[in-house]
Amino acid sequence: MKFADRLAQAVRQSGSVTCVGLDPRRDQLPAGIRDGIRQDSPDQWAAAYTQFCTEIIDVAAGRVACVKPQAAFFEQLGPAGTIALGEVIAYANRRGLIVITDGKRNDIGSTATAYADAYLGAGNASAWGSDSLTVSPYLGEDSLQPFVDVCDQRDAGIFVLVKTSNPGGGLLQDRQTDGQTVYQRVAELIAQMNAERRGDSGYGPVGAVVGATYPEQLAQMRAAMPTSWILVPGFGAQGGAADDVKHAFDDAGLGAVVNSSRHIIFAHRRPEFADKFGDAKWQDAVSAAIDEMNQALSFGSL
Amino acid sequence: MKFADRLAQAVRQSGSVTCVGLDPRRDQLPAGIRDGIRQDSPDQWAAAYTQFCTEIIDVAAGRVACVKPQAAFFEQLGPAGTIALGEVIAYANRRGLIVITDGKRNDIGSTATAYADAYLGAGNASAWGSDSLTVSPYLGEDSLQPFVDVCDQRDAGIFVLVKTSNPGGGLLQDRQTDGQTVYQRVAELIAQMNAERRGDSGYGPVGAVVGATYPEQLAQMRAAMPTSWILVPGFGAQGGAADDVKHAFDDAGLGAVVNSSRHIIFAHRRPEFADKFGDAKWQDAVSAAIDEMNQALSFGSL
Repeated sequence: MKFADRLAQAVRQSGSVTCVGLDPRRDQLPAGIRDGIRQDSPDQWAAAYTQFCTEIIDVAAGRVACVKPQAAFFEQLGPAGTIALGEVIAYANRRGLIVITDGKRNDIGSTATAYADAYLGAGNASAWGSDSLTVSPYLGEDSLQPFVDVCDQRDAGIFVLVKTSNPGGGLLQDRQTDGQTVYQRVAELIAQMNAERRGDSGYGPVGAVVGATYPEQLAQMRAAMPTSWILVPGFGAQGGAADDVKHAFDDAGLGAVVNSSRHIIFAHRRPEFADKFGDAKWQDAVSAAIDEMNQALSFGSL
Repeated sequence: MKFADRLAQAVRQSGSVTCVGLDPRRDQLPAGIRDGIRQDSPDQWAAAYTQFCTEIIDVAAGRVACVKPQAAFFEQLGPAGTIALGEVIAYANRRGLIVITDGKRNDIGSTATAYADAYLGAGNASAWGSDSLTVSPYLGEDSLQPFVDVCDQRDAGIFVLVKTSNPGGGLLQDRQTDGQTVYQRVAELIAQMNAERRGDSGYGPVGAVVGATYPEQLAQMRAAMPTSWILVPGFGAQGGAADDVKHAFDDAGLGAVVNSSRHIIFAHRRPEFADKFGDAKWQDAVSAAIDEMNQALSFGSL
């Protein structure tokens, strides 16, 4: 089944548009996982990341549509971390969750193909086995086409950075030429690429990243890319609220997934959960945070 | 010693502004390295990449300023490839070559810091131990600052994508707002970031990538970023010639390094070298190609 259709199915079956961001950070892991680790051992930290993420996946499976491991935190540990990343992706696959690897890769021609080959293709099709990968558009269309070609071959997907959630994102993205911003130009390119690639769900393999912190642009981008799944970061810890993201969805409640990382995976550290669960019951805090987010995002249409 | 000063020293000591791009590709490796490898064994391919790249480093050491391993080709092999990347970087360090890891990474805040932590810092300072890393600017200044902070802490450097060598690069980079293109805006930001960070060589840690295929823009960018090292891709196989790149240098012949990948590392496959060297003497072909490029780029000022 094509990526866009698998994602639609995952949203429908879980009744959730939540994406759980897997951003393991050494100093925020629950005490039970962190204790006893040799500070200078990448292997031990990598094992801790695998344990932490697979336990989160166990809590999330069946209740959210997808997970988004952040490659940077795994790479921070060196090669041992990249092994852990592969383990986490494979485990999420086995538990029926769609995987969006957040690598923000970009390059041109055969180099872009190498990245696509590395990350795209669940199961054994690629080294890391992701359903999809985030990609940066700065290098232009010849940096996106090789990824799209691999998507076609392997029923995979990409999410291209369009309008990001960070304060500095506007520096380049908001620049306007002939009545069109840079991010609008990227959206136009994405819409073109998807035009002939729509699956049964109505969506294609070329998705977009549009931050929750810019609600107006989110509605505008929903209209500009009617066949693209939108990955919405910036919800929760970064300040985006349910009202801000509702315009990212189509009338059937599909077309977008909303990511939250810290607010879910480190929920045991949030003031409102710390006393109730704390480090000892950190998985229960994750569970409560998922419930909370699912409820906030249930607009009644799924 | 600061990164920019180490690079200046490497250029002066080698008398060369050549950067050898380490882009190992399975199907183009010399027969002696490729033969007997089990096609489906990432470990065997990774060992072949390490052997191939370390032999190139042996040929290049003392004769060029730097090497640029392309992360994508190593990642294509999965975790085994990322181990090989670390081995290649460490070996280049030991042989006295400056390492520019070409990863085109980008993200924001603590995620950008994680990438910087992973790649920046020669010796044991980081997991991969690179002197420098290529970085994409699409996310704006808050995606660059964390990298610059780590550069400050570890005497490392970055090369920010400004004007790339590929045909599609213009799609976003050339868009003009208020008389300034996107890539000029990036250059301005880079110049600001370097302003208070100049080392003894006159250069700072924030470099730029400007393609050889756009000679006029190269001269313009040299002027716009007077304290930035410029990494010039697109020479050789991509069509850039010596005349095209000469404006990237300052009056002392410093300020830029010119990358060539395929034309050097797969020189044994070039028509003019195939008969003379072929697969059996592929290292000699690499040596001849380095001589050729050093000669083409010797403008007499070093």
